[in-house]
Amino acid sequence: MDAPTESVTIVEVAPRDGLQNDPALLSTEAKLELIERCAAAGAQRIEVASFVNPRRVPQMADAEQVIAGLPQRADTSYIGLVLNERGFQRAEQTALQEINMVVMVTDEFSQRNQGMSTREAIAAVAAITPAAKAAGLHTSVTMSASFGCPYTGEVPVGRVADIAAELAATGVAEVAIADTIGVAVPRDVHTRVAAVRAAVAGTPATLRVHVHNTRNTGYASALAAYEAGVTVLDSSLGGIGGCPFAPNATGNIATEDLVFALERSGVHTGLDLDALCRASEWLAGVLGRPVPSLLPKAGGFPPA
Amino acid sequence: MDAPTESVTIVEVAPRDGLQNDPALLSTEAKLELIERCAAAGAQRIEVASFVNPRRVPQMADAEQVIAGLPQRADTSYIGLVLNERGFQRAEQTALQEINMVVMVTDEFSQRNQGMSTREAIAAVAAITPAAKAAGLHTSVTMSASFGCPYTGEVPVGRVADIAAELAATGVAEVAIADTIGVAVPRDVHTRVAAVRAAVAGTPATLRVHVHNTRNTGYASALAAYEAGVTVLDSSLGGIGGCPFAPNATGNIATEDLVFALERSGVHTGLDLDALCRASEWLAGVLGRPVPSLLPKAGGFPPA
Repeated sequence: MDAPTESVTIVEVAPRDGLQNDPALLSTEAKLELIERCAAAGAQRIEVASFVNPRRVPQMADAEQVIAGLPQRADTSYIGLVLNERGFQRAEQTALQEINMVVMVTDEFSQRNQGMSTREAIAAVAAITPAAKAAGLHTSVTMSASFGCPYTGEVPVGRVADIAAELAATGVAEVAIADTIGVAVPRDVHTRVAAVRAAVAGTPATLRVHVHNTRNTGYASALAAYEAGVTVLDSSLGGIGGCPFAPNATGNIATEDLVFALERSGVHTGLDLDALCRASEWLAGVLGRPVPSLLPKAGGFPPA
Repeated sequence: MDAPTESVTIVEVAPRDGLQNDPALLSTEAKLELIERCAAAGAQRIEVASFVNPRRVPQMADAEQVIAGLPQRADTSYIGLVLNERGFQRAEQTALQEINMVVMVTDEFSQRNQGMSTREAIAAVAAITPAAKAAGLHTSVTMSASFGCPYTGEVPVGRVADIAAELAATGVAEVAIADTIGVAVPRDVHTRVAAVRAAVAGTPATLRVHVHNTRNTGYASALAAYEAGVTVLDSSLGGIGGCPFAPNATGNIATEDLVFALERSGVHTGLDLDALCRASEWLAGVLGRPVPSLLPKAGGFPPA
């Protein structure tokens, strides 16, 4: 018998997290082509929409239209971002398979970004999760600023672990540890993954990691998360998005670059690197500017 | 007593490897300001010149003038690149503290780049090393394409280890494992560092690692090298240079981004991140274009 294959699931976030703060306003058709290209390249989970106020986030105003047009594929799960009960009410009327919620682990960040304390955000997750599960939706929650806060600086590991425990107690299926501002390094990834894993032990919650490459530590951190046992990682085609507070900086790690690094490490992603690179080049054309990823420029290895 | 401090020595390669293929031709004065800024930021070892044919590499034509103008600092060691005996004859007439030689680990790459086989390149190291040591110079040799070859693809670990053993037998003080084309990943770094360490066991040779960020794996690989026990790492201010075969791609990892990642991991570099970022911004101005590093754009963490 063959040895068990090492594998990872990549959550593609370009259509939502990637586009949400982009200066380019993509048409519903362009978004659907992006999603179709990601799915065709092998993406198993794709974040496709956000149920937020369209006046505050015009890029996501067509959430329902995008979802209505999604390619129906048995092997692809579509995710919508839900920040409050009103958003959930919209989400549950769609054909989505998953919702993702957000809790910012510092009060300062939470108040400034969502107008509520961390505790209120946890309470919202506790209110929405049972209803979402009853509606047959997979549930996940992202703990933003788990590695550092743009306002208060260092974030104690214990606070992240305590919040993870509270979130897991709501019954949520998946907890994502997120480096929203790009300050994670591999050693800290190991530390925080271990702390969160211990905090959610005894619950069904599984772990996911979302890192940014703002300071060139993102790929190192994502690989470290995998080595620490996390088998679900977020990334964004082209490396677009992920920087609401620093629009000119690099944000999300790029799916194609992450896939190269994982596959070259012997970890199966199920994604087609060539198809991703072509999709990334198409996306750069649609956005009208270069994207941060490097694989489309450098090519894979060994050369074909 | 305090626990022993974890620390690393960074070899700054911007003035030579960084500038060697740059379209901008810097004046001797600008090169000396670059070197002075690196030294002032805390660089302990700086690659400052290359003794190559000035008709082939006009960027390095002023090697002797640069060296004559170097700031004399007790805590800084200056390195010159030597590719053959003629280059060594020039180097030994200068006030340099170190020479670095190069062996490409595949014959195809070696023939195309240096016009000799790998074996002939090893023979050159064997001829130069004793004379350099007799002249009081620190000696190092870079094994290029140790993680992959642009012409022949995968490079067997055993070949890299065998070459390292032959080089160590020449008495050279330091052997650098180099990812010249940017295909290393952390797991392969661990594999190759362990193989080379075993190959040079019983000799005085120490290890150094030089990686590129061509496919966004460079910082992960550098951190992995440190975790594998390598305490001397190459990087280039701003991330300039390192891509003779792909001028538009990212090459060297950036000193300021590497310093951020190491210091945030609790590893002392002796370098001043603010001074590096200012020097990097100055360098971008001199070159007339943005440089690939991210720290000058994103700023350090936690915020001052």
